[in-house]
Amino acid sequence: MNSVAIVGVGLIGGSFGLALRKAGFAGRIIGVSSAATIEKALRGGVIDAALPLAEASAGADLLYLAQPIQQILETLDVVDAHVRPGVLITDAGSTKAMICEHAAARIRRGQFIGGHPMAGKESRGVEQADADLFRGRPYVLTSREPQLESWIERIGARLVVLDAAEHDRLVALVSHLPQVLSTALAATIGEQPEAAQVAGPAAADFTRLAVSPYDIWRDIFATNAAPIDAALGAFIVRLEHLRPQLRSAEMEHAFEKAAAAARGLRKTS
Amino acid sequence: MNSVAIVGVGLIGGSFGLALRKAGFAGRIIGVSSAATIEKALRGGVIDAALPLAEASAGADLLYLAQPIQQILETLDVVDAHVRPGVLITDAGSTKAMICEHAAARIRRGQFIGGHPMAGKESRGVEQADADLFRGRPYVLTSREPQLESWIERIGARLVVLDAAEHDRLVALVSHLPQVLSTALAATIGEQPEAAQVAGPAAADFTRLAVSPYDIWRDIFATNAAPIDAALGAFIVRLEHLRPQLRSAEMEHAFEKAAAAARGLRKTS
Repeated sequence: MNSVAIVGVGLIGGSFGLALRKAGFAGRIIGVSSAATIEKALRGGVIDAALPLAEASAGADLLYLAQPIQQILETLDVVDAHVRPGVLITDAGSTKAMICEHAAARIRRGQFIGGHPMAGKESRGVEQADADLFRGRPYVLTSREPQLESWIERIGARLVVLDAAEHDRLVALVSHLPQVLSTALAATIGEQPEAAQVAGPAAADFTRLAVSPYDIWRDIFATNAAPIDAALGAFIVRLEHLRPQLRSAEMEHAFEKAAAAARGLRKTS
Repeated sequence: MNSVAIVGVGLIGGSFGLALRKAGFAGRIIGVSSAATIEKALRGGVIDAALPLAEASAGADLLYLAQPIQQILETLDVVDAHVRPGVLITDAGSTKAMICEHAAARIRRGQFIGGHPMAGKESRGVEQADADLFRGRPYVLTSREPQLESWIERIGARLVVLDAAEHDRLVALVSHLPQVLSTALAATIGEQPEAAQVAGPAAADFTRLAVSPYDIWRDIFATNAAPIDAALGAFIVRLEHLRPQLRSAEMEHAFEKAAAAARGLRKTS
């Protein structure tokens, strides 16, 4: 692998560039991004050079699409014409089924493997890029590919291979459902202005996600609506089931099961 | 105020003793607790002496009930016979309506003011007692009482006066509802063993409360079931309302409202 083109040099794309370099990648790292981002990325040593998508794609052995989901879909519409036959194309989008279906229809000369590095920061942008962002974090691939797997391990991430639908079902549960719950709780509390004066750490923890910018979530909801709706439906059923148990001994059993699950999550995450 | 009796010298009772002392209280602090706790409290300098409830109550100007809720109710059943007329009695229970009703029926010679210091730590016990535990935290009183208000301010807490029913309605929303949501989410995720491998910070934040010990929550659910059920009901209605909005522009509006509420919570808490 002599040349990598990173399309979308933000927090994730920039961190992937820095992480590759730190892991010993000696080839060229080309950035495809807006002029303002490219300037920052060059200044920060995140990329070696910048090119438009067509030229960057023509020279790359690996194309890394780290744009917002909608833009990844648009890049997949046009990029295949530019790449060398057999080139690896992967992405960093937070949902996988729609992207993988799109790639299956559009990518003929390249080989597409869906990816989802489960890492992030509260602030975005290439200024926040960090060679250690992926260290110890799960990195999902939708199929096996030895070269990609090897770099994922070298940047310190924890490889998880899941098919796209299964990925989307699981992240709906562990990531998208918490976001919707946080938004719903903040909105509910927000309608009771007196509640803020007695809000403690529980409310703060639970509404932290509610300040997330909608522009990221628009794409996630648009491309993973059915699994999120299913997760929400299952969660509502569980809440309805818990309501009559509040005063009963069954609640103790529910607490024990939940505590064991929560401890299990802490062991693996 | 020459003598304070702290009934239940755990994290909260012990911290109240230390906080009083640090704030300049020069009188005697008597502990009423189990032998094992008393030994630790004396060794830690949290109390000056220990007495059984009847004797401690007979000499106290302020009785501070910092036991679990059920035990507070039991103490209220018996303590009035022992206190001097006009003595102040307050408590630190997490729900207020049932305790205040109980006190109204049982306390004749003393004057009862319900209290809820909204502070805590992950670990409990007098070993964790901390003179600064209440600093900057809300401290709810169910009615005004100048002497008590003055000490609450001197220990650095933020006084909030709320009637008992309003307190219970608000904490159901900002504290008890998040606990039930956390328990429900951990249980839901726990049923999908593959989910743990892709769980990130969102799942960890949201299931942190799910490891809470049930013994505290049994009393909270038993004494605040109706407001919690109402909060859960309202939350379920909101979730059902959000489901069809996932793919629509209304979701952006919901996000904006929730983000504003979440930022508001951060300003006051």
